[in-house]
Amino acid sequence: MKFAVIGGDMRQVKLAELLAADGHDVATFALDKMRKIEGAAQLGTAKAAAAGAQVVVLPLPLASREGMLSATLSAGLHTVREVLSALSPQQIILAGRIDDASREAADTLGLTLTDYFEREELAVSNAVAAVEGALKIMIEETPVTLWRAKCLVVGFGRIGKLLSHRLRSLGAHVTATARSHADLAWIRAYGYDSMETGKLDGRLGEYDFVVNTVPARVISEARMRELKPDCLCLDLASKPGGMDFEAASKLAIHAVWALSLPGEVAPVTSGAIIRDTVYNILGEKGMTL
Amino acid sequence: MKFAVIGGDMRQVKLAELLAADGHDVATFALDKMRKIEGAAQLGTAKAAAAGAQVVVLPLPLASREGMLSATLSAGLHTVREVLSALSPQQIILAGRIDDASREAADTLGLTLTDYFEREELAVSNAVAAVEGALKIMIEETPVTLWRAKCLVVGFGRIGKLLSHRLRSLGAHVTATARSHADLAWIRAYGYDSMETGKLDGRLGEYDFVVNTVPARVISEARMRELKPDCLCLDLASKPGGMDFEAASKLAIHAVWALSLPGEVAPVTSGAIIRDTVYNILGEKGMTL
Amino acid sequence: MKFAVIGGDMRQVKLAELLAADGHDVATFALDKMRKIEGAAQLGTAKAAAAGAQVVVLPLPLASREGMLSATLSAGLHTVREVLSALSPQQIILAGRIDDASREAADTLGLTLTDYFEREELAVSNAVAAVEGALKIMIEETPVTLWRAKCLVVGFGRIGKLLSHRLRSLGAHVTATARSHADLAWIRAYGYDSMETGKLDGRLGEYDFVVNTVPARVISEARMRELKPDCLCLDLASKPGGMDFEAASKLAIHAVWALSLPGEVAPVTSGAIIRDTVYNILGEKGMTL
Amino acid sequence: MKFAVIGGDMRQVKLAELLAADGHDVATFALDKMRKIEGAAQLGTAKAAAAGAQVVVLPLPLASREGMLSATLSAGLHTVREVLSALSPQQIILAGRIDDASREAADTLGLTLTDYFEREELAVSNAVAAVEGALKIMIEETPVTLWRAKCLVVGFGRIGKLLSHRLRSLGAHVTATARSHADLAWIRAYGYDSMETGKLDGRLGEYDFVVNTVPARVISEARMRELKPDCLCLDLASKPGGMDFEAASKLAIHAVWALSLPGEVAPVTSGAIIRDTVYNILGEKGMTL
Repeated sequence: MKFAVIGGDMRQVKLAELLAADGHDVATFALDKMRKIEGAAQLGTAKAAAAGAQVVVLPLPLASREGMLSATLSAGLHTVREVLSALSPQQIILAGRIDDASREAADTLGLTLTDYFEREELAVSNAVAAVEGALKIMIEETPVTLWRAKCLVVGFGRIGKLLSHRLRSLGAHVTATARSHADLAWIRAYGYDSMETGKLDGRLGEYDFVVNTVPARVISEARMRELKPDCLCLDLASKPGGMDFEAASKLAIHAVWALSLPGEVAPVTSGAIIRDTVYNILGEKGMTL
Repeated sequence: MKFAVIGGDMRQVKLAELLAADGHDVATFALDKMRKIEGAAQLGTAKAAAAGAQVVVLPLPLASREGMLSATLSAGLHTVREVLSALSPQQIILAGRIDDASREAADTLGLTLTDYFEREELAVSNAVAAVEGALKIMIEETPVTLWRAKCLVVGFGRIGKLLSHRLRSLGAHVTATARSHADLAWIRAYGYDSMETGKLDGRLGEYDFVVNTVPARVISEARMRELKPDCLCLDLASKPGGMDFEAASKLAIHAVWALSLPGEVAPVTSGAIIRDTVYNILGEKGMTL
Repeated sequence: MKFAVIGGDMRQVKLAELLAADGHDVATFALDKMRKIEGAAQLGTAKAAAAGAQVVVLPLPLASREGMLSATLSAGLHTVREVLSALSPQQIILAGRIDDASREAADTLGLTLTDYFEREELAVSNAVAAVEGALKIMIEETPVTLWRAKCLVVGFGRIGKLLSHRLRSLGAHVTATARSHADLAWIRAYGYDSMETGKLDGRLGEYDFVVNTVPARVISEARMRELKPDCLCLDLASKPGGMDFEAASKLAIHAVWALSLPGEVAPVTSGAIIRDTVYNILGEKGMTL
Repeated sequence: MKFAVIGGDMRQVKLAELLAADGHDVATFALDKMRKIEGAAQLGTAKAAAAGAQVVVLPLPLASREGMLSATLSAGLHTVREVLSALSPQQIILAGRIDDASREAADTLGLTLTDYFEREELAVSNAVAAVEGALKIMIEETPVTLWRAKCLVVGFGRIGKLLSHRLRSLGAHVTATARSHADLAWIRAYGYDSMETGKLDGRLGEYDFVVNTVPARVISEARMRELKPDCLCLDLASKPGGMDFEAASKLAIHAVWALSLPGEVAPVTSGAIIRDTVYNILGEKGMTL
């Protein structure tokens, strides 16, 4: 089978290499800063890379800023529209975290984009990598051990679940928050302390770490005022984030907003996960690899 | 507030005691084999117990066999209909795992039953107790340790999740199965090996334990033939169960069908969980306790 | 190589079968209640079984009551002396937990006994099995879950270490005790709460489970009076044990003294461990298998 | 009680603050780069700081290079001899990892030094911090997740034990090595795979991470040649270390030698541990605090 892998970061490079290692024909574009991608052709235009490909894999996220293709490993600048124009409706086109503008552009061109970031299997594995990145930050940004530290994990979605699990294993005292009685029961079933997300007020003063995983302004200025002076605030929520960083700055609270951790700390594992997810998607479309 | 607690097993006894300890007025019926229920009145008829109660808690499950109230701690036999007839539409009536016949009987009488077993927080905590019961059986029914044993957990719902977690902690090699790519990803994220539930054929020969948690005939005779002679088959699925016990008997496979584990191994914890769930339900109905 | 396996319980049976499966020549005596031991000869006298054997494996423990061979699977009664008399100084003779009287008897006969129970690798693996047996008892003897239970583990030797590890994994709140600062530091390093064994007084009232692992009278009557009425006391220490069972009985405290758990809950695993240990001993004596 | 805290890094600063917070009188020297040490006096000479102190705490390690006091937070250079000359035989003098030259210097001056690094409770807690530092390096220096990575931990001492425990919790496949049958049994009891340290040859090719914890040249050039090209070698052993870094460089193997991790990643926790250890030592000397 022929694949085109266009734009993105080290994850896409690894994806291209893995697809090639599996015996597929692979062409790339907009990964030109790499001197070599094992087994894959590096071509000069999207059109050349996409020519003859049954499957085109675009980056995660598809667009970096509105309209621009994510392409940290390309010396050039490329618009999403320019890349999409090189593709055809006969191709299976996969991309991650597709924004509205890109989807509209695709519609106009008669292209159907499948968002592989919406696949739970990718999101879960991605969360594993994000959690390792979070642990790294928590270890390096504070002068205390995670062991015996009091950690508050706000939200019990994918990242909240895995982070709580890992932190407890490292000897931290974990309190996780959730909104539903069901999630609160799960929190307790796994052995953590539970707290309702809506009832944080007045209960933040004892934590060494507060990690937010929900995309809502959970840690407001009023709540920051409750924190111990040496508490580390770590925000893992995607934009707009859940912490008032201006207030943190004003109050001299150490606050870190960590985005894109999987691509940063584990591009190889992440590339392998994208490969698996791509195969799953193709398998469900009835294609044999 | 006044509660009536009617029928059931030690979980209901504990529930009655806990409600009384919280300062509520509690009357019971059909728990007459108990010499004493701390803080609660033991009355001779459902009507007497229910008189004046705002909330009536019926057992889990509500009916033992069709039409009969679950009441292992009563010397008498009571029909569900007889008990329901003693209640009024003004009362909040809670019961567990309500069968169709009982629900119809309630409808006829103009009563609304709320099934507390459908609450996720109860189901999760219940799963914790069931899993401990399963571990006990796995330890006592085999001459091997769980440590270093190869365990296959079929299904990754509540019980599958918690059982995998506990088994791995005890040093077992855990393979868990699921149908969706998403659940398979979760299985791997927690560090277990994964297998698709639909692809068990030919892969069952290496396990020391096979534990089924899904309510479907997963372990058929053909699959039992694959098992090692000393493999323990444990079925935790509710009726109709997931194992062919006739085949097991024919093939001299050691197979155990364990039902009602929470009430058996942890009635006190289970009673406390029912109490919490009852409070959650009442809270959501706007009642202040 | 030729082995004689004499006396004992299911562990010895399994040992005999495993040695045979490894291609050795195996004869047994005093396992006559077994209809069949796969691959091994079942002979009618110790002399016959031992004839020509380079290695003789006697049971763990060697003697059941003073002077008598442990032999729960024999219809007959056999003295240790009678069995030893059938052996020769040229043979390697292995036995478990050798008592003074048996060792003297051996000396008189010019025989050297090697105690395989003194091998750390056997003791550790044995502790794993004992701990699983303890968990089983803790689950079945109480109406509460281990999950969220408060557990006090007295002593941080092999069993204390592994029991604390397993209990915490099951969601219990674990406090372990030790005498040295070093062990107390290890207890905390693994994430448990620590308490000095010498400072239990006045601090026992909050536990749901008290498990003793040290062979000294740690849980005296005075301390039992501190316990919650529904606390389970489990004594895993070998004789003379660490709990005042008379006091427990007087105070209606639920106390269990569990001995010989490995042979009971995991004879097959235990047999395999004895086999491995026997091989290690022979290897260190320069024998090639 | 009066304490003098002299030299060292952030751990000593924290120690001084904690002692002051406990109500002791604290003077420091050679921590002059700190603008403020909460509750403690910062004096200009060792003599002034030590004047009247019952207890003097010197740094861990005592000497940085032969003869020089460890004092990364001092603008000046100080010899160990100069500092020792300011002390008196009536004082309790504590120091960490005392080298031979320093001990001789103390002897000459009639001073007795107690090495607090030899205390197991400090060493264990120190190992916890070192392991967190190791995890941080393993996450940040490789493009793969620890999750599902194959990790070889060479040596099963304090750090080997805790690192294996933490890695497994993070979802890694852990193989730990040891020399004795006893330690190999412990490795398996905790659920890791075991390998004899003496039998590494020919078995290193499958690992993503090789972490050495033993102070001996375990990972020689010949063994490095066996490694996968993208394997991370991490050496946690103190000098002379256990890896051939020259060979690593020649073979383009990614090798990291991480020393002093506790002081680097967790000075506050480490300071608290030193405080606890100091108290334990004083308690054993019969001093009441």
